[in-house]
Amino acid sequence: MKYCSQCGGTVAQRIPEGDTRQRFVCGHCNLIHYQNPRIIAGCLPVHDNKVLLCKRAIEPRYGKWTLPAGFLENGESIPEGALRETLEEANARVEIEQLYTLFSLPHISQVYIFYKSRLLDLDFFSGIESLETKLFAEEDIPWSELSFEAITRTLEHFFSDQRQGVYLTRETVIDPRPRPN
Amino acid sequence: MKYCSQCGGTVAQRIPEGDTRQRFVCGHCNLIHYQNPRIIAGCLPVHDNKVLLCKRAIEPRYGKWTLPAGFLENGESIPEGALRETLEEANARVEIEQLYTLFSLPHISQVYIFYKSRLLDLDFFSGIESLETKLFAEEDIPWSELSFEAITRTLEHFFSDQRQGVYLTRETVIDPRPRPN
Repeated sequence: MKYCSQCGGTVAQRIPEGDTRQRFVCGHCNLIHYQNPRIIAGCLPVHDNKVLLCKRAIEPRYGKWTLPAGFLENGESIPEGALRETLEEANARVEIEQLYTLFSLPHISQVYIFYKSRLLDLDFFSGIESLETKLFAEEDIPWSELSFEAITRTLEHFFSDQRQGVYLTRETVIDPRPRPN
Repeated sequence: MKYCSQCGGTVAQRIPEGDTRQRFVCGHCNLIHYQNPRIIAGCLPVHDNKVLLCKRAIEPRYGKWTLPAGFLENGESIPEGALRETLEEANARVEIEQLYTLFSLPHISQVYIFYKSRLLDLDFFSGIESLETKLFAEEDIPWSELSFEAITRTLEHFFSDQRQGVYLTRETVIDPRPRPN
């Protein structure tokens, strides 16, 4: 960030009075430009013990398999965002059953939220951001070809819970940064 | 938003190619400025069936009672943000027990996330954003003097769950906007 989006003045990083963190502050109008983590909302669409995955047609992780998910938009609830992304990426209609996994990825300032959901029909097909959409049983999941760790963890939880017959909401922090001693 | 934060050019609202929503797009460098919902993370600090509330020393809702919570920062996990806000607003040390309530407020593009947590000691005191910090039993909660609906709902859930002896993670959409017919 170099310029103030309100007045066009030059911004600089400094700690505002009463704050403890570096912010981008306009040298002209003094507006503080806060930056905050973004939410990625998605679904784990299930049919007959199988899970719907999408092969990514976009970077990052072009060609890897993912659950339908994307950035939550202003004006949307989290479930609305998850349903919209599922429709956009896989043309899949689902019913949300429960909040299922929540991941903090502080090193990239992202939060992932997935809902376990029930596929309402099998008329899904690839949206513009997908190369392929397909139902996978546990034994067919392409574990080494998944796009993100949050996807791998959500699928691991699901198949583990499926064996137990109880689906638990789980929260996880995924942070590969070295921790201070 | 009037100016591009990258190049200082003038931005205008339009639907970028391949998109379906109005975005702020720079007329000079073509950068798309996405805007996304923000997360407010907080704790429900509990001691001996009582809940720690803070009287707000800041707007909005100056003088109203709230749970310690605030905007999640870049580089933070959600639990880290909740613990930091609890320390900042009430100088209270807690242990997080569970993800407890999650609210979407799409009309103001905010998401609230609260953790049920255990107060580790009673040496809390008001931080700079609080006028007063106090433990309340259910019968003493100032219901008409609470700051936000997400706070009211979280407290209602807690005292209801306390009677049942089972604490359930709950997700709610709070949206006062009229729905299309």
